[in-house]
Amino acid sequence: MKYIAEINIMPQKEILDPQGKAVKLGLHNLHIDSVGDVRIGKHIRLEVEAESEDAAKTTVDTACRQLLANLIMEEYSFTLHEA
Amino acid sequence: MKYIAEINIMPQKEILDPQGKAVKLGLHNLHIDSVGDVRIGKHIRLEVEAESEDAAKTTVDTACRQLLANLIMEEYSFTLHEA
Repeated sequence: MKYIAEINIMPQKEILDPQGKAVKLGLHNLHIDSVGDVRIGKHIRLEVEAESEDAAKTTVDTACRQLLANLIMEEYSFTLHEA
Repeated sequence: MKYIAEINIMPQKEILDPQGKAVKLGLHNLHIDSVGDVRIGKHIRLEVEAESEDAAKTTVDTACRQLLANLIMEEYSFTLHEA
């Protein structure tokens, strides 16, 4: 079965996010003033071929831990749905 | 009221994604072979102060169009929830 994983990789709460700070400033310069904190991370969409949803989950989790996310500075979460 | 917007900005379907290609190759090199197509984009989490969910939606949409997404090469989608 084919699954699509939607992965979000964000800087951890404790980590400063200068890119987010810059975007917040940019939005305020455009007079979009109601925006508060901005955090910027990555969104990754993966196609996974797996027997079951559990197997797909394990694959995506392994991919995140081994390559996609730097767990020292980032945290990840994902959702899975059938393609 | 305070809302959190979770925005995904992805390269459009027609656009090649060399970063995604590189990640796919990297995953295969780690023997995570069941992964097919990989697309990489940005995930942005915004805090928005607004009267109503509709007002927050309008603000986030404006922010995406004016600064966050390059609509020539990227497409965006977002969800809103109360903080």
